[in-house]
Amino acid sequence: MTTELDRLAVRLREFARARDWDQFHTPKNLAMALAGEVGELVAEFQWLTPAQADDLDPETLARVRAELGDVLLYLVRLADTVGVDLSEAANAKLDENERRYDPASYRGSTRKAPPLTS
Amino acid sequence: MTTELDRLAVRLREFARARDWDQFHTPKNLAMALAGEVGELVAEFQWLTPAQADDLDPETLARVRAELGDVLLYLVRLADTVGVDLSEAANAKLDENERRYDPASYRGSTRKAPPLTS
Amino acid sequence: MTTELDRLAVRLREFARARDWDQFHTPKNLAMALAGEVGELVAEFQWLTPAQADDLDPETLARVRAELGDVLLYLVRLADTVGVDLSEAANAKLDENERRYDPASYRGSTRKAPPLTS
Amino acid sequence: MTTELDRLAVRLREFARARDWDQFHTPKNLAMALAGEVGELVAEFQWLTPAQADDLDPETLARVRAELGDVLLYLVRLADTVGVDLSEAANAKLDENERRYDPASYRGSTRKAPPLTS
Repeated sequence: MTTELDRLAVRLREFARARDWDQFHTPKNLAMALAGEVGELVAEFQWLTPAQADDLDPETLARVRAELGDVLLYLVRLADTVGVDLSEAANAKLDENERRYDPASYRGSTRKAPPLTS
Repeated sequence: MTTELDRLAVRLREFARARDWDQFHTPKNLAMALAGEVGELVAEFQWLTPAQADDLDPETLARVRAELGDVLLYLVRLADTVGVDLSEAANAKLDENERRYDPASYRGSTRKAPPLTS
Repeated sequence: MTTELDRLAVRLREFARARDWDQFHTPKNLAMALAGEVGELVAEFQWLTPAQADDLDPETLARVRAELGDVLLYLVRLADTVGVDLSEAANAKLDENERRYDPASYRGSTRKAPPLTS
Repeated sequence: MTTELDRLAVRLREFARARDWDQFHTPKNLAMALAGEVGELVAEFQWLTPAQADDLDPETLARVRAELGDVLLYLVRLADTVGVDLSEAANAKLDENERRYDPASYRGSTRKAPPLTS
């Protein structure tokens, strides 16, 4: 079955090939580009109060949406370049986290709260 | 149709709810967590030569796979929290880039090569 | 006059030379390493409430101190590698910001508050 | 003795106070802003070949210089906000690394080469 992430990976391959940009899309360069895009996404939230961030105004939401899209594009392209199935990798990591952080022990305390993943 | 990204978003909602971690999963905190995970991913590539990065050894590939999975988990969770359809956002951005960087003008020159997205 | 940042740059040059690590300390690699260290620093703050972040407990403060030190080390090393005087660059940027954001116009409103620098 | 980093910290305190921006300059927000600026810095290098990055053209160098300045400004401001002496933190970390990575054992091999700091 072809999934939405597979389709994005194929679109990005064709996008790069049509422009002869495969030469730039090395794993190191794509990892850097991903860091740059995440920086732009974080910057959208940096001066917002928690309340503003929970209820984004339409202009900010539009920019956040575009930045989220950019991050996914580079993430898919990087995963494709190194041959990783992104969806499988995420589900495997979440399986692991479900075992690792059992709900009874990690319930709601700030002190205990670990990262979602680590 | 429920897609793989929808399913991941649902799994993450249940994961957070079972642990009472919604209180930590604010947009600002998730954006920070995403930046942290991307930092770990970039760190995997930082000292590799371009040749090593193009052909990762099995141990490095396993770590990169896990980090790619982590990045997707936080990205999906953040998009879900602010109400953005990640797949639509990425495809819309790629549509825009296909119009913006026409293949004839942007073909292969390092000097001209713009970001994949900007 | 030799300043503290100059002295750090010299210590780092000698550190790299003694280990034959100049080959790894390219500008691209150092930029990646800086992104990785900043990711670790951000991760220290990600799940803290604003109140916790304003008054760090001793263990967290010790980790934050170490991460701040790491970030400065890579920043100094990168600036040295590309031949930039970091202190001059920062003061020049702050001069520019003082002109750009005049206190009367940018006073205290969240809506107007721009980045410290942009 | 007042050092260049102390002077920058004082300038930034006055800059924020004159604009009533202390309310925005919380540790969490400053950590996010730092991540955003580092993203901009990394983006300057992402599509360059190693040779281009080692010998930046004047326009790129000017942008890199400005971004390096921005990163130092936020780093100094964050350290000041949490009460860390940045210069002491960096020198302490480098002392530790000098002990940890003894030159004889870590000499020049890509396989062994650890991060400058970890």
